[in-house]
Amino acid sequence: MNRKRPVCDQLLQERAKATFQTLELTYLLDGDEEKTKRRKELEKLFHDDPQFQDEIPTVYLSHEEAYENALSKTLKIYQKALDLSDPREILTVADAILHDATPVHVHFVMFVPALMGHANEEQQAKWLPDALTMRIIGSYAQTELGHGTFIRGLETTATYDETTQEFVLETPKLSSIKWWPGSLGKTANHAVVMAKLWTKGECYGIHPFMVQLRDLNTHQPLPGINVGEIGPKMGLRSADNGFLKLDKVRIPRDNMLMKNAQVTPDGTYIKPRSDKLNYGTMVFVRVLLLDMLAFNISRAVTIATRYSAIRRQSEIVAGAGETQILDYQAQRYKLFPLIGLCHVLRGMFTILMEMYKQANTDLERGVLDTLPELHAISSGLKALCSDQASKGIEVCRLACGGHGFMLISGLPRLYATTVAACTYEGENTVLYLQTSRFLLKCLTGQHKLGQHSQLKFLLNPVASPVQPFNKQLYGLEGASHLVQYYAAAAHRELYFVEAKLKRLQAEGLTSDNAWNSSQVDLCRASHACIQYYLAKNYVEWVAQNKISPELRTVLAQICQLYLLQGIYENLGRFLQVGLKTEDITSMSDLITRLLDDIRPNAVPLVDSFDLHDMVLSSALGAYDGQVYERMYECALQSPLNKKQVVDAYGKYLEPLFKSQL
Amino acid sequence: MNRKRPVCDQLLQERAKATFQTLELTYLLDGDEEKTKRRKELEKLFHDDPQFQDEIPTVYLSHEEAYENALSKTLKIYQKALDLSDPREILTVADAILHDATPVHVHFVMFVPALMGHANEEQQAKWLPDALTMRIIGSYAQTELGHGTFIRGLETTATYDETTQEFVLETPKLSSIKWWPGSLGKTANHAVVMAKLWTKGECYGIHPFMVQLRDLNTHQPLPGINVGEIGPKMGLRSADNGFLKLDKVRIPRDNMLMKNAQVTPDGTYIKPRSDKLNYGTMVFVRVLLLDMLAFNISRAVTIATRYSAIRRQSEIVAGAGETQILDYQAQRYKLFPLIGLCHVLRGMFTILMEMYKQANTDLERGVLDTLPELHAISSGLKALCSDQASKGIEVCRLACGGHGFMLISGLPRLYATTVAACTYEGENTVLYLQTSRFLLKCLTGQHKLGQHSQLKFLLNPVASPVQPFNKQLYGLEGASHLVQYYAAAAHRELYFVEAKLKRLQAEGLTSDNAWNSSQVDLCRASHACIQYYLAKNYVEWVAQNKISPELRTVLAQICQLYLLQGIYENLGRFLQVGLKTEDITSMSDLITRLLDDIRPNAVPLVDSFDLHDMVLSSALGAYDGQVYERMYECALQSPLNKKQVVDAYGKYLEPLFKSQL
Repeated sequence: MNRKRPVCDQLLQERAKATFQTLELTYLLDGDEEKTKRRKELEKLFHDDPQFQDEIPTVYLSHEEAYENALSKTLKIYQKALDLSDPREILTVADAILHDATPVHVHFVMFVPALMGHANEEQQAKWLPDALTMRIIGSYAQTELGHGTFIRGLETTATYDETTQEFVLETPKLSSIKWWPGSLGKTANHAVVMAKLWTKGECYGIHPFMVQLRDLNTHQPLPGINVGEIGPKMGLRSADNGFLKLDKVRIPRDNMLMKNAQVTPDGTYIKPRSDKLNYGTMVFVRVLLLDMLAFNISRAVTIATRYSAIRRQSEIVAGAGETQILDYQAQRYKLFPLIGLCHVLRGMFTILMEMYKQANTDLERGVLDTLPELHAISSGLKALCSDQASKGIEVCRLACGGHGFMLISGLPRLYATTVAACTYEGENTVLYLQTSRFLLKCLTGQHKLGQHSQLKFLLNPVASPVQPFNKQLYGLEGASHLVQYYAAAAHRELYFVEAKLKRLQAEGLTSDNAWNSSQVDLCRASHACIQYYLAKNYVEWVAQNKISPELRTVLAQICQLYLLQGIYENLGRFLQVGLKTEDITSMSDLITRLLDDIRPNAVPLVDSFDLHDMVLSSALGAYDGQVYERMYECALQSPLNKKQVVDAYGKYLEPLFKSQL
Repeated sequence: MNRKRPVCDQLLQERAKATFQTLELTYLLDGDEEKTKRRKELEKLFHDDPQFQDEIPTVYLSHEEAYENALSKTLKIYQKALDLSDPREILTVADAILHDATPVHVHFVMFVPALMGHANEEQQAKWLPDALTMRIIGSYAQTELGHGTFIRGLETTATYDETTQEFVLETPKLSSIKWWPGSLGKTANHAVVMAKLWTKGECYGIHPFMVQLRDLNTHQPLPGINVGEIGPKMGLRSADNGFLKLDKVRIPRDNMLMKNAQVTPDGTYIKPRSDKLNYGTMVFVRVLLLDMLAFNISRAVTIATRYSAIRRQSEIVAGAGETQILDYQAQRYKLFPLIGLCHVLRGMFTILMEMYKQANTDLERGVLDTLPELHAISSGLKALCSDQASKGIEVCRLACGGHGFMLISGLPRLYATTVAACTYEGENTVLYLQTSRFLLKCLTGQHKLGQHSQLKFLLNPVASPVQPFNKQLYGLEGASHLVQYYAAAAHRELYFVEAKLKRLQAEGLTSDNAWNSSQVDLCRASHACIQYYLAKNYVEWVAQNKISPELRTVLAQICQLYLLQGIYENLGRFLQVGLKTEDITSMSDLITRLLDDIRPNAVPLVDSFDLHDMVLSSALGAYDGQVYERMYECALQSPLNKKQVVDAYGKYLEPLFKSQL
């Protein structure tokens, strides 16, 4: 699929239209020139290596083949990358090559960090070296068949038996079976199992335990352990998500990870000093997710934009010849704001990573109010951004018409991988509700906003009046002008639901029931607050980056369009806070203008993401634009085309055709 | 997956809460009691027949296996159903059993109808008997690699050679290759090929030609024919969508289907009398699509609602025990309006089918204004309903949390099958634009609305004033009260874009360019008009059906909720036409009340769709509610679990683990 071909004329022409230097934007999106260079080196190391080239598109592989292919490549990647310093780099490359979570993703992202975070020094010395060199591969078994987001509901037990100084692990019911952990099905020989700790007849809640799952010589499951794969999913085929049934499995006392809580040999439970650290890990994972979402939506919008420059269909002016579909306004309105989504996600990721580091520094200095706020915001951002990114990818896919339905477009897999993030790492609705709970507690003073919080305006019961909509403002000024509407809408939605909660309680509902009866509006409130947060930081990111005026002009157009679409598609929220019905006409015209102005830079803008063809893995989106050639070549490799006359003919069709001769 | 199990207590309790007779609703949704009985007979005939039971879930099959399985079952179904009178019945059963388009779907839905519609008597006598008994299986080859919705752009040519009295068929370029036709890849031995007719140096546009593709004895492609399958897609795995390259393929003159247009032996072209008939077929297909959409969304909402009654997660009142997730307001708000979507789609299908029959009668009587209007409305309805249904299915899938991501939930396949309808049979954006073009032409008098048209109020340049929002109105009265807002919004959006078109033309744009620069608002306008159309007909359907008061109460609650959500999620549109900011509070409270009132009937409402477990094919949604048992059993059958230690261990993991011992 990645064979070198000449670039087609249409894309050459598109690229000639750029009003900015694509490389400058690439540096900005990567972080800086150094980071781009480093990425290119890795690409050279991996993407051009023949052992990572697939003979046929990986989407054509069966479930088993896909797993095996991914495992084989992953191990080669790690072998080749032993001298690379940053494991995140390796993961990024591996994910990009595999287009999927690798079968050892959880090992490096959850098992090893769990050891670092929960194992004491002695335990780390025992397991960590083997884990880092993959002599043991571990999973992280928390979610159960009957329990996900609500951790306290987990049912697996670890009961201390002081006579043998062992823990007895047990999944007492069908619904307690561990379900979903990546790598658990077929790859891992160890797992950190989260279970309810019982000792001396008391339950102390969920704690981590190291459990060896498989014999190190034969890879067969150990006695009492029933382990397997949970079956194929909509996406993430290469990760062998698994199940684990534990039938009175005994592990030594010191297999409980004891950096924090401990159980002494006589069964005495010793409480952990603090649980703030877990909090931090959850935030960190959500920050990383923004990066993944930015990566995925940039892949989708690159594919759809390039394809839309190639594809010609119908005519704008009758008889004037068929039009590149990128010239239809409806198509531009679908795609260009999504370029903005990539930018805001990338910018937000950088900002949040800084905040995360700051919050950790604060924590060490005893400043405790940064992390809860960051946690609330990162929860809401995870929900809003995974919603927007997955919906955006589906918009890209549908914008490619029927061809986007084919696996070789690369888009169905991107959608599946991305939409998975709406339910994992905290289900989105639950996260929206968490964020609004935090914000409402800020209003009543139960939580305190940090010194530099961007949400302090919410504490003022009276919203600041908005300035009238000014249709003359364009670009950065125009984008900046729109942020006030987002702020006012956030304020209104939050106080709207606060009033509803009070009203329901005044009518006699308990606060719990009032809360449940307001969930729809609570989700809307946190959505509005997070949307504001995103808008504000987006505009600042565009304004404050050190870039050329040419580039800033283009970025500001995209930013203004993104913010305008956010209003135009949700007018109700903004008509309530000072936007006038008459302004809608001006907005419509401004959108029309921006869609025209951005058009010449459309392909250069997606080129700036600088995504290698192997990373795109799409017959529609390659750099050379040879769409139809690639589609035809891929079709010839389809499994059904291995034989001209398929076996089903002899079995079913031939008897039918000939019986009636 | 469909083994009989006892019904779980939770669903027994849910079913005991019903305030109406589920069977009465089943009759209504099927059409009448007779139709329900007939459906049950067919179910007995097919669903209980062991030859249609799968040993493992079909989602676990490879692409080849899935095709072979579907082909085998389809042929058995047709054999068993030879005595059934209505082929649509057979197709419905087949689709329900296969959860996919069958490999002979296109044969019966397009190839045979094409023969009936385009072949003259002689030609029908020659091909139709063989087609009906499947001695020949045909495809319908229209779409090309480079052209879809824009028919005039098709590039395949059929050039008449009067010296041999043959047509020479040719796909001159890569982009002209026929691409997508169902059954074309491996199953069909014939195709109706749509090609540009050339004779005596003149081009007469697209016409249908009968082309034999494969040898009837060997099934090998005939000379000049390059045919194959296009490769796996996001869904519809069993349909062997194909490609077809024609290299100077000669066919006799009388293989041109000549019921309408003709070419005489000397190459003279004779025009068809009329092209209205093609128009009718397109409408018919779009009407049938509503039925399919209703079927698919009803499957998804049944699965998600039953699962939500089983699944317990977290607590509403701290310490009071875990809650059925169906008791969370946010979950109800996701699912209950989708029950309404099923109802309105089912009702709309019945109404539109009547209108279609009426339009045909009108046509025969020389009344010509019914069909164009029906065509415009059915285009818009197809777009709006396929959008709503596919998004609704995805809402159901995500409402099941991570488990909805597993193929055995049945939901990923339902989503893929349904979202395909957003791009096939006319891409949705193109259809929205077609509908608005028709409506705008009505405003200027270029089209005439039919005598009984429901859209006549649009012709009045001044909208009727809306009555103030009355929060006291509940149920049917409440739903009826909301329709006026939908009407006013439709009116406003249409005149909004008309004003925009005039403004742009006044600024100097040509009408073509003004049109293109208004596409965003044009889509919004037809969306609003069709949303009104749906709302109005939904309320009438609830009001006019002959049903018990108990049932009408429940249907009216669902209808009011559906219409309220339509407003609540799109407030901007309605705040512009008389809805007040203060009304939003009342709406929120009314939604809260309805979500509570509908709750006891949630499971009975989805039970009324009366979907056989085989039709649902979901581990989460079966009638007995034994969710976790089924999930665990299915997981054990996963392809990766055939061996406890997979081959990849010996190949890749063992060397890794042991090399470092």
